[in-house]
Amino acid sequence: MNPEQSRATVIKIGGNIINDESALSEVLSHFADLKGPKVLIHGGGKLATELAERLEIPQTMIEGRRVTDESTLRIAVMVYAGLINKSIVAGLQSKGVNAAGISGADFDLIRAKRRSPEPIDYGFVGDVTEVKKDTLIQLLESGYTPVFAPLTHDGEGQILNTNADTIAHEVAKALSQHFQVTLIYSFEKEGVLLNVNDNSTLLPQITLEEFLNLKASSKIFAGMIPKLENAFKAIQSGVHQVILGKAQSLPSLLNGSKGTRLIYDK
Amino acid sequence: MNPEQSRATVIKIGGNIINDESALSEVLSHFADLKGPKVLIHGGGKLATELAERLEIPQTMIEGRRVTDESTLRIAVMVYAGLINKSIVAGLQSKGVNAAGISGADFDLIRAKRRSPEPIDYGFVGDVTEVKKDTLIQLLESGYTPVFAPLTHDGEGQILNTNADTIAHEVAKALSQHFQVTLIYSFEKEGVLLNVNDNSTLLPQITLEEFLNLKASSKIFAGMIPKLENAFKAIQSGVHQVILGKAQSLPSLLNGSKGTRLIYDK
Repeated sequence: MNPEQSRATVIKIGGNIINDESALSEVLSHFADLKGPKVLIHGGGKLATELAERLEIPQTMIEGRRVTDESTLRIAVMVYAGLINKSIVAGLQSKGVNAAGISGADFDLIRAKRRSPEPIDYGFVGDVTEVKKDTLIQLLESGYTPVFAPLTHDGEGQILNTNADTIAHEVAKALSQHFQVTLIYSFEKEGVLLNVNDNSTLLPQITLEEFLNLKASSKIFAGMIPKLENAFKAIQSGVHQVILGKAQSLPSLLNGSKGTRLIYDK
Repeated sequence: MNPEQSRATVIKIGGNIINDESALSEVLSHFADLKGPKVLIHGGGKLATELAERLEIPQTMIEGRRVTDESTLRIAVMVYAGLINKSIVAGLQSKGVNAAGISGADFDLIRAKRRSPEPIDYGFVGDVTEVKKDTLIQLLESGYTPVFAPLTHDGEGQILNTNADTIAHEVAKALSQHFQVTLIYSFEKEGVLLNVNDNSTLLPQITLEEFLNLKASSKIFAGMIPKLENAFKAIQSGVHQVILGKAQSLPSLLNGSKGTRLIYDK
C-alpha cells in the first residue's frame, strides 16, 4: 500500500435491492454522496427469472446454478444491460453523478473466456481474463462513474454472462494497481451472520482462517461462501479493504460502524 | 465549413437490417473500415414489437405512431439499450472498433424533455434538448466509437424513447461545430425513390425545393418524409453532407456512386 495513492471505492449491489425502487434510490443517494473515483457493479436480481417465466423460457439448473442457453443470455442482456443498468444510470444522473453503463463489451473493458463445457456445460458463461485498467482509470480520472452490468465479452462478438461478485473482485483488483481501493459487497443482510436470521450473530470482522473454519464446519450460510471467496481473493490481490453488509447502510459500512470487515494478514 | 477541420462520420442504421444477423455483420464490417472519428446510431427494428406481442402487452397506436406507456418503455429499454446495442457493440469490438454503447443517459450525453401530452399524449417520448458535444468529442478523440440506442433521459431519472433519425441529426449537428461531418441515413432502399418498388427511379440528389414539391404532390413515399425532414434539418444546421441509401452499400454511399445526396444552397 502506497500512502500517496488516491482512494477509490468499488461497490457491488445485489439481491432484492435491485427490484425495490425506493430502497434502490436510497442506496444510489448514498453512493452519489461518496467522494472520489467510484464504480458500481449491479447484479441481476429476480427480474431475469421473472421475464424468463413470462416468456415461458424454461430455465435449466445444474447443481443449483442456472445454465445460460441462448434464450437465457438474450434475457440476461435485456434485463442486466438494458432495464437494470439504464435505470441505475439515469437514477445516478438525477443525483449529479455522471454515470456510464458498461457491459464489459463497452470500451472493451472486461474480456472473458467462455467456461469449458467439461465437466458441466453452463452455456454462455464467461470467466474474466482481463480488465482493461488503463481505460477504466481514464474514465474515472475524467470524472465518469462506470456502472457495470454482470456481463463480459470474448472479443469475438460473444457476450457472456458473468457473476457480479466476480466482476466486483476483478475490477477492484485491477484498480488496486493505481488506487487504494475499498470494496463493498452489499446485499440484504447486515454482514456475515452465524445465524442468518439473527443480527446479533454478526461477525464485525473475519479472518481467512476463521472463514475456512466456519466453512469446514458448515457454520456459515451457503450463499455467503462464494461471496466471501471472492472477497478474500480481492484482499489477497491487493485491494486495501473489503467490507460486507447491508446496501442501505453504506455510510456505516464505510466508517466501520456496521458490516463485516475482512482481515488479511499478509 | 473550415477546410482545416478533421472529418467525422455519423451513420444511422435502421429497418430490417437490425434483425438480419448476416446483413448486420456486413454493415458493421463496412463501418469498421471507416477511417477517423465515427458514430453509429441504431433504430429498434421489429424486435420490440415482437417482444411486446410475446409478453401480451397491447400496443396503442395514435395516427400511426406508437404510444410509449410504462410497459412499452421497459421493452424499449431492454431491446434497444440491451439486446440490440450490446450485440452491435460486441460485434464492432470483434472487428477491432473500440465501441461504447450509449443510451443518452450514459455520460449524460443526450438530454430530452418529455413531449407535451397535448394535443396527443405519446407517453414516455422525449424531444432532444441538448447533446453534450464536449463529452462526445472527448470520447471520439480518445479513440472510442459511440453506439447510440434510440433513448434519451430527462436528467431527473426518467429514460425517454426518442426517434433514432432525430438522434442522428442532433448528434451530427452537435459534432459539426468541431468536425466536418458526413451523415448517412441507411435503410433497406437504395435511396430516395419516386417509386419505392423501382430502383431505376432513384434520385441521385435532391434539393430542399424538390423535396417540398414532391411532398406537396404526394410523389414521395410517406415513410421517407420524416427521414428527409431530419436530413434537411441536419444540413441546414451545418452538417457537411447528408446521404441516404442502402446500409450494405456504405462504401458506395460515401464515394458518391450510390444513394441520394442532399443538395442545400446556403
